Amino acid sequence: MGYTANGTAPSVDKRSLSSTNGTRPTLSSNSVLALTTGDPTVFEPFWRKMGDKSKVVIDGGELMSYFSDVGNVCWFLEPELGDAIRRLHRVVGNAVTEDRHIVVGTGSTQLFQAALYALTTPAGVEPISVVSSAPYYSSYPEVVHCLRSKLYKWGGDACTFDQDGPYIEVVNSPNNPDGTLRESVVKSGQGNVIYDLAYYWPQYTAITSAADHDIMLFMFSKCTGHAGSRIGWALVKDKDIAKKMTQYITITSIGVSKESQFRAAKIIEVICDGCHNVGSAESENFFEYARELMSKRWQKLREALQHSKRLSLFKYPRERCLFTGELNERLPAFAWLECKEGIKDCEEFLRGFDIVGRGGKAFGADPKFTRISLLCREEDFNGVIERLLAIKGIRNGN
Amino acid sequence: MGYTANGTAPSVDKRSLSSTNGTRPTLSSNSVLALTTGDPTVFEPFWRKMGDKSKVVIDGGELMSYFSDVGNVCWFLEPELGDAIRRLHRVVGNAVTEDRHIVVGTGSTQLFQAALYALTTPAGVEPISVVSSAPYYSSYPEVVHCLRSKLYKWGGDACTFDQDGPYIEVVNSPNNPDGTLRESVVKSGQGNVIYDLAYYWPQYTAITSAADHDIMLFMFSKCTGHAGSRIGWALVKDKDIAKKMTQYITITSIGVSKESQFRAAKIIEVICDGCHNVGSAESENFFEYARELMSKRWQKLREALQHSKRLSLFKYPRERCLFTGELNERLPAFAWLECKEGIKDCEEFLRGFDIVGRGGKAFGADPKFTRISLLCREEDFNGVIERLLAIKGIRNGN
Repeated sequence: MGYTANGTAPSVDKRSLSSTNGTRPTLSSNSVLALTTGDPTVFEPFWRKMGDKSKVVIDGGELMSYFSDVGNVCWFLEPELGDAIRRLHRVVGNAVTEDRHIVVGTGSTQLFQAALYALTTPAGVEPISVVSSAPYYSSYPEVVHCLRSKLYKWGGDACTFDQDGPYIEVVNSPNNPDGTLRESVVKSGQGNVIYDLAYYWPQYTAITSAADHDIMLFMFSKCTGHAGSRIGWALVKDKDIAKKMTQYITITSIGVSKESQFRAAKIIEVICDGCHNVGSAESENFFEYARELMSKRWQKLREALQHSKRLSLFKYPRERCLFTGELNERLPAFAWLECKEGIKDCEEFLRGFDIVGRGGKAFGADPKFTRISLLCREEDFNGVIERLLAIKGIRNGN
Repeated sequence: MGYTANGTAPSVDKRSLSSTNGTRPTLSSNSVLALTTGDPTVFEPFWRKMGDKSKVVIDGGELMSYFSDVGNVCWFLEPELGDAIRRLHRVVGNAVTEDRHIVVGTGSTQLFQAALYALTTPAGVEPISVVSSAPYYSSYPEVVHCLRSKLYKWGGDACTFDQDGPYIEVVNSPNNPDGTLRESVVKSGQGNVIYDLAYYWPQYTAITSAADHDIMLFMFSKCTGHAGSRIGWALVKDKDIAKKMTQYITITSIGVSKESQFRAAKIIEVICDGCHNVGSAESENFFEYARELMSKRWQKLREALQHSKRLSLFKYPRERCLFTGELNERLPAFAWLECKEGIKDCEEFLRGFDIVGRGGKAFGADPKFTRISLLCREEDFNGVIERLLAIKGIRNGN
């Protein structure tokens, strides 16, 4: 997901944007490159290539009712989307869907709030602490703090959380911002865990097993690149939790866009069909395409920084992927850059080179780190590489 | 808007539903008629009739970004939808859009929360009371109470609110559930008013003037019948309030479905084009069609109850409508039934005749009242009339 840490518009800093059509942000020469958000426009070319296959048509008289499936716990989930989601997880093998309830949300952001509501009602005497291991996704504290709820409060870094009593731990794996694989770290017995698996897809990491947790959140944005649809889903083991999550979404938005659900079902269907043509000449395997793309970007990025004394990147182990059947390196959606040579504020340092990332502080980490998105359009990514090479150049004095 | 007062699925009471395709609720003989929700399926025939005119086509590579218009306060508002909304209000004449910022939301429910957030941050020492004149829309207290916020709390009936200090009054006009026209009633100088104008459209009431308030909420559902799209919009005078509302929607759902916005723009365009053909033989004027339909339903309803000693309806004055140019009677989306002859619980009484409405208590009113939706499909509406006539029959002992 992507927006600035203070909840204002991604890249609303006008300097940071030019536009092809007056509305969409893209790179222009000598403009500032805004990579604070994870806008996944990187995958647009694949979907344009798919043409009619991935097109949806909606008549004026369709999808008008609030209702989708009144017999289902999540009464506003379009059955076609539910089926598509189960099929997608079967094809990819990244999550168990048997005996799980699917709750659809307006992005996984709304589902995160729905899970917090489900796990903290009826209200106790004290708000329940919500924690996550630093560096944690900058939106977690922001969402938790937003309405100053008496149900829950932000408890900070899970690694240093040592209070008794109930708590909720959010585990994001692979982790945004640093791409590491995560497990719950709080050892108390009175906690609930929400697994945010937004990036557990073959283009970002090896699929090492089918995730099997009580509450798992996924989103359409980072899986297929369709961020504008605002579709996320939760796989929930306990029926009462699924009911309460549904209740939260009913109270706060009376369901989820039917048009988005209808289109998401179609896009997912295209992906699943395409996965049966692995390695064919003109491959229509989305994950293969996306992996190759991410792989090229990481290669360019590592090359650009290989001799840098000022900026460094994490190294990730290779793992056997059950989906590709190969030994795959991890290719996170974000680069978690670390400044060296005593540079204390990486965000500020990069701004000096017209690269706008999101500083470590927003993630509960040291300001010597900055997150930059690798999911931007091609011209923006090439602009980042140019500017990183320029930094190196300065170091070499040429 | 419509769902049961405890935030669970509208009509999830299985007894109350049969289904044409296993998913959509419709009437079946001897089933219970669930009219607790305002699902506006009444208008489906118009949109089916419009055919290709109101059809939308979306390619797989379109609407993928989080962004719609980075130069706009509401950065996720599709410019085409913004233009369509301004045109619609100009054509209908029901609201001033000049010098107003448009904020789009996932239904007006999310916009209501966004307005509460905007009007109560930065947080004060005490939560701010949110009030509305009883009978008030049952979702207001539910939304306000949902997360036990320290920013605001439910203050109940605006007519009896007499505390000093800041407050927020919600004015719903025409009012859900009782169809009355409303103005703010709290006289203190320290309050903000949110105008919920969901039903201020020509099919429900005369358009007597262009509403001109600081914060006005409208929704797509009750205007055109497209509840499934979950599109609402706010017309906001103050830029900082619009910014904060945008910030709330950014934090809680990172924007609003692009597919829904795209389709809403198209549907609104069809409505505006159709309004130029008023009175033509095969009229394509949506509001004319919808008004005629509501008028027939109210006529049938009043006929069914005209001699009833057990149930009565409000009478509304006729007003000159600036849109139709005629003297129009008010045709609310809901019937606010009042029980007589000492029947204390109207909801329970109607259940006895297999009509499920929402009792007065949910609206802060006397249980002798019940709200039933008049926006249901034709066969459901006819079922209600049959059963209301049966009640009369029992009274007559024949």
